[in-house]
Amino acid sequence: MFVLGIDPGLSRCGYGLVRRDGRRLRAEAAGVIRTDPASPLANRLADLQREVRDLITQYRPDEVAVERVLFSANVSTAMQTGQSSGVVMAEAAAAGCGVTLYSPNEVKSAVAGWGGADKGQVSRMVEVLLGLDVPLKPVDAADAVAVALCHLAMMTASPRSATGVAS
Amino acid sequence: MFVLGIDPGLSRCGYGLVRRDGRRLRAEAAGVIRTDPASPLANRLADLQREVRDLITQYRPDEVAVERVLFSANVSTAMQTGQSSGVVMAEAAAAGCGVTLYSPNEVKSAVAGWGGADKGQVSRMVEVLLGLDVPLKPVDAADAVAVALCHLAMMTASPRSATGVAS
Repeated sequence: MFVLGIDPGLSRCGYGLVRRDGRRLRAEAAGVIRTDPASPLANRLADLQREVRDLITQYRPDEVAVERVLFSANVSTAMQTGQSSGVVMAEAAAAGCGVTLYSPNEVKSAVAGWGGADKGQVSRMVEVLLGLDVPLKPVDAADAVAVALCHLAMMTASPRSATGVAS
Repeated sequence: MFVLGIDPGLSRCGYGLVRRDGRRLRAEAAGVIRTDPASPLANRLADLQREVRDLITQYRPDEVAVERVLFSANVSTAMQTGQSSGVVMAEAAAAGCGVTLYSPNEVKSAVAGWGGADKGQVSRMVEVLLGLDVPLKPVDAADAVAVALCHLAMMTASPRSATGVAS
């Protein structure tokens, strides 16, 4: 199974493509889609849409896993992140991919063993799971890879409970 | 000028297409895009994306005006509405339309004369401005037409201040 993990954001949207062959996990690509803060919001969302479409067209993942957007102290940022996640989900579903959302705590629990893990612990576990010698950077890319790993872990644990989860 | 007004939502997304020729205002189409609450969120967003794209392709508006999503008591609904608005804005910008956001109060002020107007007053003013004999229904369609009328009023009042407004 080949999973595209997304850590949504407007200024920085992390992505990570992880393949599982049997018990072997391999990151095939990871990075960050950036949009220009000087551009109007709608144009930035259109830029993100195009980049996500290109990623899906290029790599053809089976499934897309997206980190759920929670309401933070900064309401404006949360709304922009939500708008970005909407664009990503629409593109993924339009391309025929199953889309599943995971909360930040679910991602941390699946990858690092508990929901209170800090970014460093998650990053270190991503390295261990993928057999990397150096930390995956930047952090948004590592976070997105963690979302993909979370989905692969959930699918292994309970293949039917993790499909097409809404909201 | 030909404006597509959008009252964003996931279950019900209102749209209204209003043309201004000189001082004459005319609603060319209005309605509601609905998505199936039984479908997964990502599929509903993809359905909305396709319908908005079809609307823009069919009518070719010059500009798109979208009601800004505010945080309501229902956080989950606000996030879904935000995700829907993100999809609409991305589609509009990708189609080359200028996109402008207006708060609910800005729409009410522009159409009914003050920001505290109720839905009935806004609906009645939409009828008056467009010279309709009967109320425009359903209410989401009337709200979307009001957003388009707001944009036309703003563009008339101050053509340069209302282009490409972000966030």
